[in-house]
Amino acid sequence: MRLQLRTWPDVEGYLGTSTGIIVPIGSTEQHGPSGLIGTDALCAEAIAIGAGERLGAMVGPTINIGMAVHHMAFAGSMTYRPSTLIAVIRDYVMALTAHGFRRFLFVNGHGGNIPTLQSAWYEIHAELRQSGDAAAGAVRFGVQNWWSGAQVKAYADEAFGAAEGSHATCTEISLMQFLYPDHAPVLAAPLDPAVAPHHTFHGPEHYRAVHPDGRIGSDPSLASADHGGRLFDIAVMEAMAAYEKLTTAE
Amino acid sequence: MRLQLRTWPDVEGYLGTSTGIIVPIGSTEQHGPSGLIGTDALCAEAIAIGAGERLGAMVGPTINIGMAVHHMAFAGSMTYRPSTLIAVIRDYVMALTAHGFRRFLFVNGHGGNIPTLQSAWYEIHAELRQSGDAAAGAVRFGVQNWWSGAQVKAYADEAFGAAEGSHATCTEISLMQFLYPDHAPVLAAPLDPAVAPHHTFHGPEHYRAVHPDGRIGSDPSLASADHGGRLFDIAVMEAMAAYEKLTTAE
Amino acid sequence: MRLQLRTWPDVEGYLGTSTGIIVPIGSTEQHGPSGLIGTDALCAEAIAIGAGERLGAMVGPTINIGMAVHHMAFAGSMTYRPSTLIAVIRDYVMALTAHGFRRFLFVNGHGGNIPTLQSAWYEIHAELRQSGDAAAGAVRFGVQNWWSGAQVKAYADEAFGAAEGSHATCTEISLMQFLYPDHAPVLAAPLDPAVAPHHTFHGPEHYRAVHPDGRIGSDPSLASADHGGRLFDIAVMEAMAAYEKLTTAE
Amino acid sequence: MRLQLRTWPDVEGYLGTSTGIIVPIGSTEQHGPSGLIGTDALCAEAIAIGAGERLGAMVGPTINIGMAVHHMAFAGSMTYRPSTLIAVIRDYVMALTAHGFRRFLFVNGHGGNIPTLQSAWYEIHAELRQSGDAAAGAVRFGVQNWWSGAQVKAYADEAFGAAEGSHATCTEISLMQFLYPDHAPVLAAPLDPAVAPHHTFHGPEHYRAVHPDGRIGSDPSLASADHGGRLFDIAVMEAMAAYEKLTTAE
Amino acid sequence: MRLQLRTWPDVEGYLGTSTGIIVPIGSTEQHGPSGLIGTDALCAEAIAIGAGERLGAMVGPTINIGMAVHHMAFAGSMTYRPSTLIAVIRDYVMALTAHGFRRFLFVNGHGGNIPTLQSAWYEIHAELRQSGDAAAGAVRFGVQNWWSGAQVKAYADEAFGAAEGSHATCTEISLMQFLYPDHAPVLAAPLDPAVAPHHTFHGPEHYRAVHPDGRIGSDPSLASADHGGRLFDIAVMEAMAAYEKLTTAE
Amino acid sequence: MRLQLRTWPDVEGYLGTSTGIIVPIGSTEQHGPSGLIGTDALCAEAIAIGAGERLGAMVGPTINIGMAVHHMAFAGSMTYRPSTLIAVIRDYVMALTAHGFRRFLFVNGHGGNIPTLQSAWYEIHAELRQSGDAAAGAVRFGVQNWWSGAQVKAYADEAFGAAEGSHATCTEISLMQFLYPDHAPVLAAPLDPAVAPHHTFHGPEHYRAVHPDGRIGSDPSLASADHGGRLFDIAVMEAMAAYEKLTTAE
Repeated sequence: MRLQLRTWPDVEGYLGTSTGIIVPIGSTEQHGPSGLIGTDALCAEAIAIGAGERLGAMVGPTINIGMAVHHMAFAGSMTYRPSTLIAVIRDYVMALTAHGFRRFLFVNGHGGNIPTLQSAWYEIHAELRQSGDAAAGAVRFGVQNWWSGAQVKAYADEAFGAAEGSHATCTEISLMQFLYPDHAPVLAAPLDPAVAPHHTFHGPEHYRAVHPDGRIGSDPSLASADHGGRLFDIAVMEAMAAYEKLTTAE
Repeated sequence: MRLQLRTWPDVEGYLGTSTGIIVPIGSTEQHGPSGLIGTDALCAEAIAIGAGERLGAMVGPTINIGMAVHHMAFAGSMTYRPSTLIAVIRDYVMALTAHGFRRFLFVNGHGGNIPTLQSAWYEIHAELRQSGDAAAGAVRFGVQNWWSGAQVKAYADEAFGAAEGSHATCTEISLMQFLYPDHAPVLAAPLDPAVAPHHTFHGPEHYRAVHPDGRIGSDPSLASADHGGRLFDIAVMEAMAAYEKLTTAE
Repeated sequence: MRLQLRTWPDVEGYLGTSTGIIVPIGSTEQHGPSGLIGTDALCAEAIAIGAGERLGAMVGPTINIGMAVHHMAFAGSMTYRPSTLIAVIRDYVMALTAHGFRRFLFVNGHGGNIPTLQSAWYEIHAELRQSGDAAAGAVRFGVQNWWSGAQVKAYADEAFGAAEGSHATCTEISLMQFLYPDHAPVLAAPLDPAVAPHHTFHGPEHYRAVHPDGRIGSDPSLASADHGGRLFDIAVMEAMAAYEKLTTAE
Repeated sequence: MRLQLRTWPDVEGYLGTSTGIIVPIGSTEQHGPSGLIGTDALCAEAIAIGAGERLGAMVGPTINIGMAVHHMAFAGSMTYRPSTLIAVIRDYVMALTAHGFRRFLFVNGHGGNIPTLQSAWYEIHAELRQSGDAAAGAVRFGVQNWWSGAQVKAYADEAFGAAEGSHATCTEISLMQFLYPDHAPVLAAPLDPAVAPHHTFHGPEHYRAVHPDGRIGSDPSLASADHGGRLFDIAVMEAMAAYEKLTTAE
Repeated sequence: MRLQLRTWPDVEGYLGTSTGIIVPIGSTEQHGPSGLIGTDALCAEAIAIGAGERLGAMVGPTINIGMAVHHMAFAGSMTYRPSTLIAVIRDYVMALTAHGFRRFLFVNGHGGNIPTLQSAWYEIHAELRQSGDAAAGAVRFGVQNWWSGAQVKAYADEAFGAAEGSHATCTEISLMQFLYPDHAPVLAAPLDPAVAPHHTFHGPEHYRAVHPDGRIGSDPSLASADHGGRLFDIAVMEAMAAYEKLTTAE
Repeated sequence: MRLQLRTWPDVEGYLGTSTGIIVPIGSTEQHGPSGLIGTDALCAEAIAIGAGERLGAMVGPTINIGMAVHHMAFAGSMTYRPSTLIAVIRDYVMALTAHGFRRFLFVNGHGGNIPTLQSAWYEIHAELRQSGDAAAGAVRFGVQNWWSGAQVKAYADEAFGAAEGSHATCTEISLMQFLYPDHAPVLAAPLDPAVAPHHTFHGPEHYRAVHPDGRIGSDPSLASADHGGRLFDIAVMEAMAAYEKLTTAE
C-alpha cells in the first residue's frame, strides 16, 4: 500500500487500524563501472513496496538521496550533507506523527546512511520531548538494512563468497538486474581487477584513490537477475519480519 | 536518460556533451477524496522522464516531498518546512555542480513549491558567490510548472472549463489515471459539491475549514485517462521546449 | 499609527480593538543610474504609513533589506540570503503574535521578496502548529505589492506605457521623486539606451551582463514627482483596501 | 550620505575614496509608559545620519529590531533571537564587504544589542577566514553606544543625576522629544513612582515583575526636547570621533 | 602531551613533527545506581591522556557531553542534540585543521556517540571540499571505542562473562573505580536484579520503562579497581595502536 | 559536588534540596609564550569545583572550548563560532532544566566568552517562552568572571600593578602555576618586551600583528604559584558569594 497511490480518506482509514509505516531510504551514488547510480534507492524502494504489499502496510515515498559524501569523486554521485539528511528525516517523520503514525521501519539500501539515520532519530526524540508533542514517548524507529539480513547474507556467502564485496556488491547488482532488466550497462572492457580492492577510506578523494573504479571488494560480474529474484524474495521476507516485530512490540 | 539508471562512466561521458539536467519536483499531499496523495510527484516525474527520453537529457531523482504545510490538516499529507526544502534543493544542486552540471530545469508538479524553489535558487547563487565556487556565475535555473504551460492550459480550458479548479484539478487527476490506471479510488459517494469551493486560505486549519474535502474549485469526475494521455504528450513537449531554451541560451 | 512612535500602553489598548498590523518590507539595492538604492524600502514604508494613518491601523518597523542576491554585482546593493530573510520575518511575526497580533498585511516594495516572504509564512505556520502555539490556526498573512495593484498598473500603463519596465520603473522613480524631492541624482549623461533592455537573468553576474546599468525595461526619465504624488494616493488606497479585506474576513 | 538615498554609481565613486560605513542599530521595545517603542532605533538612526552628513561618510539602512527578549512581556516589544540577529548582521556586513567596504562603525541605541553584536563580529571573522574571502584580515568593526559616550554621560550626570536611570532614560526620552516633537504621549497619570526601581532581572517575566511599568531607575519626566537637542549634538560629535578613529587606524 | 598544558610555541614545534592528535569524547549520563554520571567522558579522557603520554602525541580537550538523548529520563543526564554535537565536532576539527592538524583519532567512551561522530566527519569532509580548504582530501578520522577493542573485550569476557552488559558495564565501572577510587557510591540496597535486563529501547521514556535503574544487562557489583587498572593498560595500548595505524598510513 | 562524580540517584536527591548548579566555562587558546593553552578552562574548572565543594553545590562538566576566534592566528588555539557556542550552552542548560535545575552560575575564565554567553541566555529564554516549557519564567543565569571579582582585582592591583595586563595576565598564570606546578614551560629567552603591548584588535590576523607573542599588556614573569594559591582562595570565595546571591534571590 503505497502512500503515494492512496487518497487521504484511505490514510485516515488505515490509521484507524495501524500506526505503522515503512520508509524506503537509499542513495544516488556511483556503483562501480557496471552498477547503476540509483541502486541503493531503487532496491530499498522495491523491497519496501514488496513488503508493504504483502503486509497491507503503508509505504511512504522513497528518500532517494542519502549520505554519500565519500562517493562524490565519481561523476553523478549525489549526497545530502548529514545535517540536511537529518532535517529531511525529521520533517518526514514529523509530518507523519502529526497524523498519528508512530512506528517507522526504514528499509535502507545504503550503509552510509546508517549513522545519520540514527542521529536523526534522536534529533526527533529530543524535539518531540522538548515541544511536549503528543507523539513524545510513543514514537519508535527501526531499520532493516536489507543487505545485512541473516538470510540475505547467507545467500550471498553461498552464491558469491568473498567476491560479494561491500560496495557495488554482487547482491545489489543482482537485485537491480532483476528489477531493471533492460538497464544492464555495456562495459567497454572487463572489470579490472575482477575483484575490486577493499580499503579503509577517508573522504571522497581518498576513496577514489584506493578504489579507482568505485567498487569495494566485489566482482559484480557474478551477479545475475536470477540471483536477484531470489534475493528479492528473501529481502522482502526479512523486511516483513522486521516490520512485524517493530509494530507488534508493546 | 535517468541518472538513477546510469553508471558513473555514463555520466562522465554525458558531461562531455551537456551540462544540463532535468529535476522532477513534486509533493506528497492530499488531492481530495478521489485524487492520489502522490499526484504532484508522480506527474512531475513522468513528464520529466518523458522529456528526458525524447531529448537524450539526464533526469535526476525526484524530489517527492515538497512545501505543503497548508495541506497538513488532511491525513497522509507530508511537507518539508521551507527551510528544509531549501537545504534539500541546495544539496541536490551543489552535488551536481561539483561534477560540472550547470543548467537545471525543474519540472514541477506543485504550485506550493514555487516560492521555496525560487528562494533556494538565490540561496545557492549567494553561496556559490561567497565561496568562490567554479560554478558561480555559470549556474542557471529554470522551472516548468507543467500544469501552467500555454498548451496544457488551453487543453484544460477547452476540456474542463471552470471545473478544472486549482487543486485536485481535472488535469492532474486525468494524468494520474493515465499513468496509474489500476489505482482509481473507489468513492463511497459522489463528490459533494460536484465543483469544489475556491477560497483564499491561511494555514492548514483554515485551508480545511474552507475546502472540507481538500479540493479547490475542481470537479475531478470530469477527468479521464484518455484526457491524461493527451495531456501527457503536451506537457512533455512543453517541458522539452523549456529545457532546450534553458540549455541553449548563451 | 506607527508602532515605533507609540508607547506600550498604547499598543495594549490597540490590541483591545484590533489584531491587525501593516508591515512594510522593501529592499536596499541598485535602481539603475538614476534610481536611489533605498527605493523599495522607502516606497513601501511611505505607503504603509500612509495607509496606517488613514486607517488608524498599526504599522510596524520597516524590513529595509530584502532578497536581492541578483542585484549584488552593483555597488551598494545589499541582500539577505533567503534563509536569513525567513528568520527575520519569522522573528518579526512571532514577536507580535506573542502580544496578540493575528493579521499581518505586508506592504511590499520589491518583487524579489515575494517567494521568500511566502516561504516564511509557511515556515511560521509550521512552527506555530508544531509548538502548539495559541496563534496556530488564527494567523493570517496578506501582501500588497504596491506596484501591481490594479489601479497603480492602470495609471502606469497610461502614463508610461511600455517604458514603465520592471526594475527601476517609472512608477517607483516617480514615487521617490515625490517622497524625496531633494535627492534627484545628477546624471553625467543621458540614460543609454533610453529604454533599458529586458531579459531573463540568472544570478548576479548574468543580471549585470544583460542589464549593464541595472535597469530592466524602463525609461525612468519619464518619471516625475507629480506622477509620484498621484501614484502615492492610489497605492495608499489599494493598501487600505487590502488591509480591510484581510482584517475583516472571518 | 545615506546609502538608501544614493545611486549605485555614487557608491562606486565613494568606494574609491573610503571603505568606511556607519551602521545604525537599535531596537523596537517598550520604553516605559511615556517612552516611544522605537526610541532605540530612531535615536541611533538620527545620530548616525547626523554624523554621516557632517563627515561625508556613508550611512547604511537601520537595523531597527534588536535583541530585546527581556522586554517581551510588554505589548508591542519586538525582538530577534540572538541567532537571528547574528544572521542579520552577518548578511548586512557580507553584502557590503563584497563591494569593498571594510570598516564598519555601528551606532548603537540599545544596550541589549551589545553581546549579540560582538558575537556577530566574530561569526563574520570566522567565516571570512574559513572561506578565504578577500576581506579576511581587513575587516574592522567598532561600536559607538551613543548613550555611554564620555560627554553624553557627563551631560546626563549634570542634568539628571541619579534619575537618568538605565532604561527609558532621561537622555533617550529627551532625544526623542527633540527628534519627534509631535509624538509626546499623553499620560493618564503621573509616573509612579517618580523614579523607577532598578533591579537585576532574568528573562521577560522577571523583568516585568521587578519593573512593572517598564522603566529601570529613571524619572523621564525630567526629559525635555531642549536637553535632547543638546544631547544630539554631543552624541553626533562623539560618533564622528569614533568613526574617524576606526577609519584612520592603520 | 595535553594541548591544554602546552604553550602555543610548543604546538608550533609539535606540528613540525606530526599532524596527529587524539581527541577524547565521552558523555555525561546516568550509569545506573552505582555508576558515576561522568563515566564515559572520564574514562575516554584518561585513556586518551595515557596513550598520548606514552606516544608523545598531542591530546586535545575532552568533549565531555555526548549524544545521550536516550538517557534523559534519569536525573543528571545531559545531552547534545545530534545537530549540536555535529557543530561541536566540526568546530573542534576545523580549528585544528587551520593550524595544520590532519589526523584525528577520537578515543570514545560512549556508544551513543558513534553515529553522530561519523555524521560529523562527513559534514566536515563536505565543507572542506566545498570551501576549497587546504585540508580537503588530507584529513583523516579514526575512532577507538575503548570498550570494544579486541583485548578489552577478551578481558571482559573472561572476567565478567554475560554480566558485563552493555550499559553501566563491569568494564567501565572498574575503570572508574581505578581512576576515581574515592568516589565509590554508597548504595542503599543491593542491585536488583543483580544482572540488569537487556532490551531494545526507543527514546528516553521507553529506555527507562525497560531499564528501570538505568543499567543494561550488567552486574556492576563484579567491578573492581583492580580489574580497572588492568583494563586501563590494555585500553591505552589499543588506543596507541589505533593512533599509530591512523597516523602512519599513507 | 561534581555532577560527573555522582550517580543519578544522587542528583535526584540533590534536586529535592536545590535547583542550583555551577557551570565552569573557559577556553582553549594561546596564553603567550609562557602561558598554557588550557588556562581559561582549567582555572574556571578549579574555581568552580572549589566553590562547589565548600558550598555543597552541584558543579557541571566544564565547557572547555570557548569563543576565541581572535586567538586563531596562534598554533593550538581552538574556538567555537559564536553560533556553535550558543547551541552548546543552549543544549547544556536545556538538558538540566528538564531535570529541574533552574539557577545557573557560570564561572567563566575567558573574557571573550561573555558576549556569546549572554546571547545564549536570551536564546534560551526565547525558546523556553515559545515552547511553553515549565522552566519559562523560572530560569535564572549569572556569571562570575573570576578575574574581575572585586577582591581578585584588588589583589592583582597590589601584586602586579600595570603589569597585570589583560591577556596572559599575571593573575591567571599564577593560578595555573599553583594548580599545575609541574607544567611550567621552559622559555628559550626572556619575554620581550617584558610588558606586552596593549592594543585594540580586529580579528585574528590583526590581533597577532599588534600582539606578536600573544600577550596583551602583561608581564607574566611576575606570576608565582604562591600568588596563585592566594588568588585561588579569593576567587573561590567570590564565586561562592555569587552563587549564594543567585540561588537565594526570590
